[in-house]
Amino acid sequence: MLKVAVIMGSKSDYETVKPAIDTLAKFGVPNSVHILSAHRTPDLAADFARHAKGNGYGALICAAGKAAHLGGVMAAYTTLPVIGLPIKSSLMDGLDSLLSIVQMPTGVPVATVAVNGSENAALLAIQILALSEPELDAKLEAHKQEMKDAIINAKI
Amino acid sequence: MLKVAVIMGSKSDYETVKPAIDTLAKFGVPNSVHILSAHRTPDLAADFARHAKGNGYGALICAAGKAAHLGGVMAAYTTLPVIGLPIKSSLMDGLDSLLSIVQMPTGVPVATVAVNGSENAALLAIQILALSEPELDAKLEAHKQEMKDAIINAKI
Amino acid sequence: MLKVAVIMGSKSDYETVKPAIDTLAKFGVPNSVHILSAHRTPDLAADFARHAKGNGYGALICAAGKAAHLGGVMAAYTTLPVIGLPIKSSLMDGLDSLLSIVQMPTGVPVATVAVNGSENAALLAIQILALSEPELDAKLEAHKQEMKDAIINAKI
Amino acid sequence: MLKVAVIMGSKSDYETVKPAIDTLAKFGVPNSVHILSAHRTPDLAADFARHAKGNGYGALICAAGKAAHLGGVMAAYTTLPVIGLPIKSSLMDGLDSLLSIVQMPTGVPVATVAVNGSENAALLAIQILALSEPELDAKLEAHKQEMKDAIINAKI
Amino acid sequence: MLKVAVIMGSKSDYETVKPAIDTLAKFGVPNSVHILSAHRTPDLAADFARHAKGNGYGALICAAGKAAHLGGVMAAYTTLPVIGLPIKSSLMDGLDSLLSIVQMPTGVPVATVAVNGSENAALLAIQILALSEPELDAKLEAHKQEMKDAIINAKI
Amino acid sequence: MLKVAVIMGSKSDYETVKPAIDTLAKFGVPNSVHILSAHRTPDLAADFARHAKGNGYGALICAAGKAAHLGGVMAAYTTLPVIGLPIKSSLMDGLDSLLSIVQMPTGVPVATVAVNGSENAALLAIQILALSEPELDAKLEAHKQEMKDAIINAKI
Amino acid sequence: MLKVAVIMGSKSDYETVKPAIDTLAKFGVPNSVHILSAHRTPDLAADFARHAKGNGYGALICAAGKAAHLGGVMAAYTTLPVIGLPIKSSLMDGLDSLLSIVQMPTGVPVATVAVNGSENAALLAIQILALSEPELDAKLEAHKQEMKDAIINAKI
Amino acid sequence: MLKVAVIMGSKSDYETVKPAIDTLAKFGVPNSVHILSAHRTPDLAADFARHAKGNGYGALICAAGKAAHLGGVMAAYTTLPVIGLPIKSSLMDGLDSLLSIVQMPTGVPVATVAVNGSENAALLAIQILALSEPELDAKLEAHKQEMKDAIINAKI
Repeated sequence: MLKVAVIMGSKSDYETVKPAIDTLAKFGVPNSVHILSAHRTPDLAADFARHAKGNGYGALICAAGKAAHLGGVMAAYTTLPVIGLPIKSSLMDGLDSLLSIVQMPTGVPVATVAVNGSENAALLAIQILALSEPELDAKLEAHKQEMKDAIINAKI
Repeated sequence: MLKVAVIMGSKSDYETVKPAIDTLAKFGVPNSVHILSAHRTPDLAADFARHAKGNGYGALICAAGKAAHLGGVMAAYTTLPVIGLPIKSSLMDGLDSLLSIVQMPTGVPVATVAVNGSENAALLAIQILALSEPELDAKLEAHKQEMKDAIINAKI
Repeated sequence: MLKVAVIMGSKSDYETVKPAIDTLAKFGVPNSVHILSAHRTPDLAADFARHAKGNGYGALICAAGKAAHLGGVMAAYTTLPVIGLPIKSSLMDGLDSLLSIVQMPTGVPVATVAVNGSENAALLAIQILALSEPELDAKLEAHKQEMKDAIINAKI
Repeated sequence: MLKVAVIMGSKSDYETVKPAIDTLAKFGVPNSVHILSAHRTPDLAADFARHAKGNGYGALICAAGKAAHLGGVMAAYTTLPVIGLPIKSSLMDGLDSLLSIVQMPTGVPVATVAVNGSENAALLAIQILALSEPELDAKLEAHKQEMKDAIINAKI
Repeated sequence: MLKVAVIMGSKSDYETVKPAIDTLAKFGVPNSVHILSAHRTPDLAADFARHAKGNGYGALICAAGKAAHLGGVMAAYTTLPVIGLPIKSSLMDGLDSLLSIVQMPTGVPVATVAVNGSENAALLAIQILALSEPELDAKLEAHKQEMKDAIINAKI
Repeated sequence: MLKVAVIMGSKSDYETVKPAIDTLAKFGVPNSVHILSAHRTPDLAADFARHAKGNGYGALICAAGKAAHLGGVMAAYTTLPVIGLPIKSSLMDGLDSLLSIVQMPTGVPVATVAVNGSENAALLAIQILALSEPELDAKLEAHKQEMKDAIINAKI
Repeated sequence: MLKVAVIMGSKSDYETVKPAIDTLAKFGVPNSVHILSAHRTPDLAADFARHAKGNGYGALICAAGKAAHLGGVMAAYTTLPVIGLPIKSSLMDGLDSLLSIVQMPTGVPVATVAVNGSENAALLAIQILALSEPELDAKLEAHKQEMKDAIINAKI
Repeated sequence: MLKVAVIMGSKSDYETVKPAIDTLAKFGVPNSVHILSAHRTPDLAADFARHAKGNGYGALICAAGKAAHLGGVMAAYTTLPVIGLPIKSSLMDGLDSLLSIVQMPTGVPVATVAVNGSENAALLAIQILALSEPELDAKLEAHKQEMKDAIINAKI
């Protein structure tokens, strides 16, 4: 199965990003976790993206805040799907992160999820891999049913 | 090859959405174009999403403006990757569309691209399909090189 | 008397929504409370809306946050008045919820109240029912007078 | 049948408000059109609201822009449902109008529709009256079907 | 000397408004404090404004939050200078209050100060009265010098 | 009678500011018009403010756009009432101008009117002067009546 | 004298950026103009920044719009002062560009000027070089005087 | 070596500004710290800027919040590079401060860094001085390497 990389721009993002890692693990998707900064380790980030396809990755989840360039920089070096996860930081509840990630110019998309939407970043990666992994597809269907049941069984 | 559906909430979105259709055609990706409204034809939209996987689709591009629920509604009925394309309309240059699409709750992601970013919506769909279509992958690499050459050869 | 349904997208919205329920009770309006998600239980939400008129409802209060599609989805399936109650969540103090609810496209209105304005959502429902319920109308007039008296009697 | 009043704060709002008037006419709802300003004719606005119930009105549509107080001022003097229609003017594509109308304090709701959403303001009024007018209800159901058919029959 | 009225829309605004009252007291400006709501006691608010000039007031400070209509409603009934003081509440750090107050339509100005800028609201009222009160003018000059000295003498 | 100064930061603001000048003229208020930039002629702006009281001014209207410091800079050098008129320019429909003017720190108020609200800036100045000019007061009352009549007589 | 590089992310930015180039020329500052995209030619952009210091540059002006990563990416590879020039594009009058550029994380500053503030980007570069170029310093002083004279001599 | 002045509009900004002072100290850059208000000590602020070049300064860091005029006012009186540091205060997470600083009119740039980006303000000043101080340049290169190493060595 293709792997998913979870990359964050700073160690301080770890707690917010953790649900993405946990979700990938829960679905049995092989993954690796990295700290790579578009601004502080640009070469390493570029290298990672350049070789991600060859290294067996199928999607890159890039979490960053403020002027969040990580997803865009990674997408510049690979044609793999890059999932942008805006981290809420100092300005306007994450609007700076969101706009820095989602408003990519023509030619280099970043698939953006909600601010701090870590679990959804992982689910999107799983949906992408599931297109050629029937087992994952079955797990997604089961997960959808579980969410439904959880609401049906919720007691107020 | 899996198909891509391009769905718009209103016929008036067609001109903005067209670059997505053209890009899919240019890459030779089988696609179909639909007008389906989350609010005016909810049953049809739900049915389309419910049967999309069985009907051979691999990704759904959902374009909508204002209180843009189309992507979220489709994602509610399928585990296929849903790509949300916010259309700029009346309020704050598309911020209403963008927030309505990207801020999905946990469990149901919509992969959001830039406001009016139609070509990127298609490229993201192609990147997803390319994971299991080497020919598409080669075309994406060539397209990346073409973009690079276009900038290198640009004359000011 | 027609009933009012109070529907929330998630159990976690309950505390914020509670003043709506309490207000309906205080005015003696028959009501029922539901957890129904536009994204996690779309079929159930659609079914509820589709049969709400036949089941004796006169207005639906739909509380949701973030990309808040619940009101719009319910309004897609019924011609009953749908009251949208934006719940403040992560982004811009509820602006994402507000825009996702109020900016409905032509043909499918959602009557939107203030962010976290639960009591007002209930009062609006009561105002609507009061058009054909003289007793409710009298209670609304009395409530208006009470609010006035509370201000006149306030001591600084 | 109860009447609907369409009230605008300035004659210059007429073109934007016209679809509300046309929609009421199309559904056969008795209505009257007024120019009343919360700031320039406050007494007249207050009087209108104070006597609206006695004068046979069932809902008031209040259209205003910028610091849009018309809906709130009318709602201060009546317990009839007041529908707020934010008019797009100079600042942030109508965000000033929208927030001035929708963010009403506890006790005095204004049912807000989309910025410039005139037709929806009328449809909401009709939905409210339809609770006790079966003929209007039938027309609303027919209108919902027409919208659906228009989308099904749309050719791209 | 003309009096200054400090009016707030709700008793809960008192703590935020208090610096305005204290500043008027410190400058020896005769003042009175009132709770008057544009929406819950509209008649009383209108009456107050209508008779304010005759009752010896020279300026009205109107503090309100959310859809903050108090200043505009008072200004509708008087030609006295009305000072709008936006109170920070639930949405966007007081942006709703600010826009609801400052964006008044042509013909009916409200002199708006910063969100929660209570002391400045009072100082503005004092500046206005000082035009015909040399003693107040001298106090303002002294206050300006005190502010300057406070900064010069500040130790980091 | 005290004079009113109309000061703009750039000649290009003249057309937007003109209604302020016309309104002052219509009310017979002595006034003078100046181009003074907080950033390009800071000494001249400071000098003007420093001597404005001695030169017979009663209020300063300061019109500026973008990072609009003119009003604040003038207010730093005088205790006269300074009226800030935000000019709509490039960013967010004048929100940059508005926030730059209205959000003054404690101790130095600027009485802010609506974005591009030139006529209201003049009316506010007139309201201030009218406190000690009965003739102006009468004109303001007449103007209020004219506005009312214009609305009453408006034909749709 | 050290050179200034003017770099834009797309040929379509040229007209907006031109005043920067013209200003550098007017002050006699050696400069070069480049099209380099953070997303479409990331290697070339990185190389340019990496060698800019060695190639005799003293400051880099980076103009870009939307998710504007160019300045940040260049700053990642050099310790030269990088001046970020946000270009107004589709969303919120350039707010996306502004936030993407100015909100850089700790350690990697980008000196940001106003949206579309091309001339100021050049003036800032000149101010920086002027610290060790007395001739440039004299030209800046003369330019400041010219701006002052232009305002003094402006006729309304 | 040229000196850097760190100027804040209020003593209350000290804690936020402190990382700028510490960073300058760490790099061995001569600096001085001042409290100067554009609005409360305008003369002193103007004087400081007017004589900064003659007094051996090479860059001025100006920290201010809300209607943050300090940087602009200083830049009006000097051609030295002025670095604007927006301080987060009451409205929209510092957006008022940011826009008040960055949106300077043509002719008078302020080099703006992130909201509360104190360390970056200092680093930008150091980058500017380093153009003619090889020792500072070496320290910047070492600092860049340290940041890189810190990320490489981070353990999750």
